Amino acid sequence: MSAMKKFINSPETMLAESLDGFAAAHGDIVVLGPERKFVRRRLLEPTKVALVSGGGSGHEPLHAGFVGYGMLDAACPGQVFTSPTPDQIVEAAQAVAGEAGVLFIVKNYAGDCMNFEMAAEMAECRTATLITNDDVAVESSTYSGGRRGVAGTLVVEKIVGAAAQKGVALAECAALGTRVNAQTRSMGVALTSCTVPAAGTPTFTLGENEMELGVGIHGEPGRRRVKLVAANAIADEMTAAIMSELVPTGGSDALLIVNGFGGTPLIELYLMYNAARRLLEKRGLRIARSLVGNFVTSLEMAGCSITVSLLDAEMLAFWDDPVRTAALRW
Amino acid sequence: MSAMKKFINSPETMLAESLDGFAAAHGDIVVLGPERKFVRRRLLEPTKVALVSGGGSGHEPLHAGFVGYGMLDAACPGQVFTSPTPDQIVEAAQAVAGEAGVLFIVKNYAGDCMNFEMAAEMAECRTATLITNDDVAVESSTYSGGRRGVAGTLVVEKIVGAAAQKGVALAECAALGTRVNAQTRSMGVALTSCTVPAAGTPTFTLGENEMELGVGIHGEPGRRRVKLVAANAIADEMTAAIMSELVPTGGSDALLIVNGFGGTPLIELYLMYNAARRLLEKRGLRIARSLVGNFVTSLEMAGCSITVSLLDAEMLAFWDDPVRTAALRW
Repeated sequence: MSAMKKFINSPETMLAESLDGFAAAHGDIVVLGPERKFVRRRLLEPTKVALVSGGGSGHEPLHAGFVGYGMLDAACPGQVFTSPTPDQIVEAAQAVAGEAGVLFIVKNYAGDCMNFEMAAEMAECRTATLITNDDVAVESSTYSGGRRGVAGTLVVEKIVGAAAQKGVALAECAALGTRVNAQTRSMGVALTSCTVPAAGTPTFTLGENEMELGVGIHGEPGRRRVKLVAANAIADEMTAAIMSELVPTGGSDALLIVNGFGGTPLIELYLMYNAARRLLEKRGLRIARSLVGNFVTSLEMAGCSITVSLLDAEMLAFWDDPVRTAALRW
Repeated sequence: MSAMKKFINSPETMLAESLDGFAAAHGDIVVLGPERKFVRRRLLEPTKVALVSGGGSGHEPLHAGFVGYGMLDAACPGQVFTSPTPDQIVEAAQAVAGEAGVLFIVKNYAGDCMNFEMAAEMAECRTATLITNDDVAVESSTYSGGRRGVAGTLVVEKIVGAAAQKGVALAECAALGTRVNAQTRSMGVALTSCTVPAAGTPTFTLGENEMELGVGIHGEPGRRRVKLVAANAIADEMTAAIMSELVPTGGSDALLIVNGFGGTPLIELYLMYNAARRLLEKRGLRIARSLVGNFVTSLEMAGCSITVSLLDAEMLAFWDDPVRTAALRW
């Protein structure tokens, strides 16, 4: 137990207890499905396209924290850093599906893609699938062929969630999400590892003066393990990597997200936001919208990611639309 | 640098850079005052009682994150774990004061109390002062005579903020806040220390299997340094300590807050919420409202606090009233 300082009763029951707490704390917004297979909106709206996401737990508030009016209809929590099973996804989809069909929003990891694909084949409802892959750090990684889906996923979920809420049809929701994903890029950095409860020891080890630049949200390796440097220099390398993959059109409006990985406090996240914003403005971006906080986490990992999303007027309007979930409300 | 893994450029500029980031990210809600002496609402409402709080930084989002419609009018950030100066508080008060006067909401620490008292004498506006002291852990501590003000402060700020927004007068706002504080009790526990940037080394040291039960939000000693035990046992001791200081009347409605100290992720906070809720329900409390997340933090400390607030119908209605701040929105 020496390497794991957590509020926990047992690794086997951790997820179930946390989900019970989540559902009880937000009972006005969500309901926990049978056998805790999914979290769904309390108030179903069977005439709209239903958005279903999910993935391994340990990234809270993603995805269950984004279930509610204007965003997801259901989310399937796998065990920590483990994909949800196809039957979880099928039951979630069938619990929220109406005639307008179901859109699966899936982060690009091999297990998630496979299980959502199996669910799409098994589900007795119309489905479409949208894969997010916003992480510029590496071209492929421990759990993914191609780029990983990370914090940019919440931008897709918010914007497509608003569109679905307004009655946009399944194919158009999928097309909108594809465009948002294409204009959204992220990169992360870890200052410490995290410890998966069932493993009991840290996923990786960093020296006292080291950081992992380009880390994945499960602690997968990034680009380089290097000496910890000043925040401005970290932000410079991250924003440069992001912008090398984005092509702003004239006067692009940008959404800037500085996302904590779970162990980094707000005072540091706002400092990183300040550094990133200045660097992006120097590159000619107009930061039109901002989000700072812990949204797509890696258990108690210290670190953060930066996400830049170039939004056209339609996307901005959907971003601004009302949302009422546990983790995002406006 | 080996003991301090933070996103930082220099300890001297950390607070200023973080405040600049905060003000830029939330420019629709707040304005940063001259020389960064305070954060105030962008839209002033000179006919209502103005609420001004403040204290040392390192507890983000407290207090600046609670500035906005329905809550605070201004907040004064001191350096990390250091009280704001009287002139900061005077300038904040005078920037937001109207004829209805200013209510200072002050956590019970010697430096904060002294500096807000000096400010009240110096300010050219009508003021009243409300001191919060919800921490049941110790009777007095490193920085306080009498009980410390901790996460319960946000309950006072939310409820009195709603009352002021509705036009309640200064004396009645102060009386309401006094009643809320009297019915609000908290206790914290640390699994790790935090490191003040200017010090560069951890504030205290815990063994690999130890926790500090009753810890203060600056890492001050609590009741006992003991072996880390299961989450249910921790929640049991914390809720028992809290309930020994609260007298529920028949069918009391309770607000339950599980507050992270900065380094503990949501998956653990919801698990602790689940444990605390079950224990409190066994004691006959009805948990009518809930809040889970990082609200009153201690830099990157791993740990959490539990707050129970017994709310009458008037207080519940004020709690439910709309709020629009960086950290609380509904």
